[in-house]
Amino acid sequence: MQKFDYYTPTKVIFGKGTENKVGKEMKKDGAKKAYIVYGGKSAKKSGLLDKVEKSLKDENIEYKMIGGVKPNPRLSLAREGVKEAKEFGADFILAVGGGSVIDTAKGIAHGVANPDTDIWDFWEGKAKVEKSLPVGVILTISAAGSEMSNSAVLTNEETGMKRGLSTDFNRPKFAIMDPELTYTLPDYQVGCGVVDIMMHTMDRYFTDLTDCQNDLTDEIAESLLRIVIKNGRVACKNKEDYHAMSEIMWAGSLSHNGLTGLGAPMDFATHRLGHSLSAKFDVAHGASLSAMWPHWANYVKHKDIERFARYARNVWGITEGTDEELADKGIEATVEFFKSINMPTCFSELGIGIQDEDGLRELTNRCFYVKGTKVGKLIPLTEEDIYPIYVSANK
Amino acid sequence: MQKFDYYTPTKVIFGKGTENKVGKEMKKDGAKKAYIVYGGKSAKKSGLLDKVEKSLKDENIEYKMIGGVKPNPRLSLAREGVKEAKEFGADFILAVGGGSVIDTAKGIAHGVANPDTDIWDFWEGKAKVEKSLPVGVILTISAAGSEMSNSAVLTNEETGMKRGLSTDFNRPKFAIMDPELTYTLPDYQVGCGVVDIMMHTMDRYFTDLTDCQNDLTDEIAESLLRIVIKNGRVACKNKEDYHAMSEIMWAGSLSHNGLTGLGAPMDFATHRLGHSLSAKFDVAHGASLSAMWPHWANYVKHKDIERFARYARNVWGITEGTDEELADKGIEATVEFFKSINMPTCFSELGIGIQDEDGLRELTNRCFYVKGTKVGKLIPLTEEDIYPIYVSANK
Repeated sequence: MQKFDYYTPTKVIFGKGTENKVGKEMKKDGAKKAYIVYGGKSAKKSGLLDKVEKSLKDENIEYKMIGGVKPNPRLSLAREGVKEAKEFGADFILAVGGGSVIDTAKGIAHGVANPDTDIWDFWEGKAKVEKSLPVGVILTISAAGSEMSNSAVLTNEETGMKRGLSTDFNRPKFAIMDPELTYTLPDYQVGCGVVDIMMHTMDRYFTDLTDCQNDLTDEIAESLLRIVIKNGRVACKNKEDYHAMSEIMWAGSLSHNGLTGLGAPMDFATHRLGHSLSAKFDVAHGASLSAMWPHWANYVKHKDIERFARYARNVWGITEGTDEELADKGIEATVEFFKSINMPTCFSELGIGIQDEDGLRELTNRCFYVKGTKVGKLIPLTEEDIYPIYVSANK
Repeated sequence: MQKFDYYTPTKVIFGKGTENKVGKEMKKDGAKKAYIVYGGKSAKKSGLLDKVEKSLKDENIEYKMIGGVKPNPRLSLAREGVKEAKEFGADFILAVGGGSVIDTAKGIAHGVANPDTDIWDFWEGKAKVEKSLPVGVILTISAAGSEMSNSAVLTNEETGMKRGLSTDFNRPKFAIMDPELTYTLPDYQVGCGVVDIMMHTMDRYFTDLTDCQNDLTDEIAESLLRIVIKNGRVACKNKEDYHAMSEIMWAGSLSHNGLTGLGAPMDFATHRLGHSLSAKFDVAHGASLSAMWPHWANYVKHKDIERFARYARNVWGITEGTDEELADKGIEATVEFFKSINMPTCFSELGIGIQDEDGLRELTNRCFYVKGTKVGKLIPLTEEDIYPIYVSANK
């Protein structure tokens, strides 16, 4: 292990019925006027919002709500939230939902605390977050890991850019996680979550490991992957399996709080490839990742064939073959697993087909936030690397 | 996974030379007048304290120091520190050392923030910590995990009681970890640290698992144990192996920050058995644990033979035999490992021999903070359970 910083101040409150504690937790953090962010109707229909309202009323916390957050959350809604929350005088932002809701809440928190800055400036790197409001989370989707992570992703629908922002001000104060709240998710979303959780770890695991040897980080990453795969198979068949859903939920948080990549740089090229796809076609984040990873992996594997062989051995239990053969078998096993949980592994399985080079060039260009930079660490990818990866996926 | 809380707000700054950042980190936490706690001469001789002083001066942080903290840290020194730090007007406590120094610093922080309470009242449960001063850590010994943990252990030398206090106010603000700072430790202390780290995980791993199934927790615990064992063998031969020392250092923090036991109650009977021994004979904490664990394990193994068999398989790679045989082989492998790193596995190897029943009864009684309670979870131990465990160790 060489150098790293690790900072995960989020208090996790995990287990059945923990959502009823939300008012008490917010009180501890000094909340008096809360702005609540949620997604669709399910939070209302399931009775979750009623529970939240009761818990806040019990603690004399005033609140106002905004719903309608969609996957690949829009900048415009976050801006609207900033305006409303400011007018309301909010001192706390509560997210009730999954990654998109949480990321929108983070954006609103930054906006309220910095009234003179347009929040997209933070995402574009034109301004730096130096203060924010506290954010609390009641998690209803195991996937993004945003409930403990330092990142938040928004899509600017005017420019078609989907971008992440990393700052410790993105770390929520608390995350309430009740696996039962995830029972009502659509099957497709459970699958997307499993992929997303895997990819948060794999985008750290496959990276430039020059001068890095991180035994504990690597073994935790491999353990987490094995567990998500094992419980993912169960969860995709029975969403009411408390054990499987709870393992996936906790793995989702650990996968993206930093723990699974300590001591090495983060690659995250597959995330970038997927973001470009999601911003253009509005496909689900997890699905964009499963569609891109195999093509990325086949393009870069030669750079560290031992790593891909180790992945096959330690994650998939494949032991026979040369390192080259093991690497291929590990990638193939991943593809088969994605298919088995109905996740796409190429564009056509996503319902997308791009007919001309221009379309693929557009996706490629969108991966580069700043012209002339490179994407990823295992192989820092140029436009000439990324284009053939999209060509490979476009089948 | 059933229910758990997980809260680890400590910021970890890991890597070579990170001790030079201490002033900057303290500044971020608002420190103006720091009270520095350290142990023996090595912190001075090695030049570490000089670096700390320079870093604080660079940030215009005033400071005062107290040295002389010894293993099994004394309440009296902590009380002296409280008095001095109060007079100095300290607003921050900095620990430069290992678990004993950190625990003393935690005690001082509680004392300064609560001037009307004698700190031992917190340890005896007569008063509750509701506020404290911030504590920062520069870690020089990988062992106790106190740099991220919610616990602190002090010994009241007047009554001969060694007790732990668990509260989130014990979580340090930051922990600076430079593995190179551990190169100068005596061999014996490296071995003690390896045992201590293992036992923080094993005292969570072997517990009452009724209604608990924690895949991720268990696999992280097993990974951590394998890595500490592997790198412990290397470190005990070459303390200047950066890789081995860094893996052990990070494992030490994760082993006791909560991660390796989430979703199940904590047993910690071996710790209690060891504390009694340390308080009476002033033996090193790690040595007290290796001397007690095998005897505890043999006494309780029948309660969950499958768990002990799994431990043998997943930690030691032993695969042949019935569950009963595997359990025994796993315990035996642990004993052999302890011996291989010169750690004691019974009283005589600790240099202790108790001739009469009264001596063993005294050790037994000391395990019970409150008469009539029980110790541990796998089997909640009464005095009639603990006495034969000490008899077994007394050889």
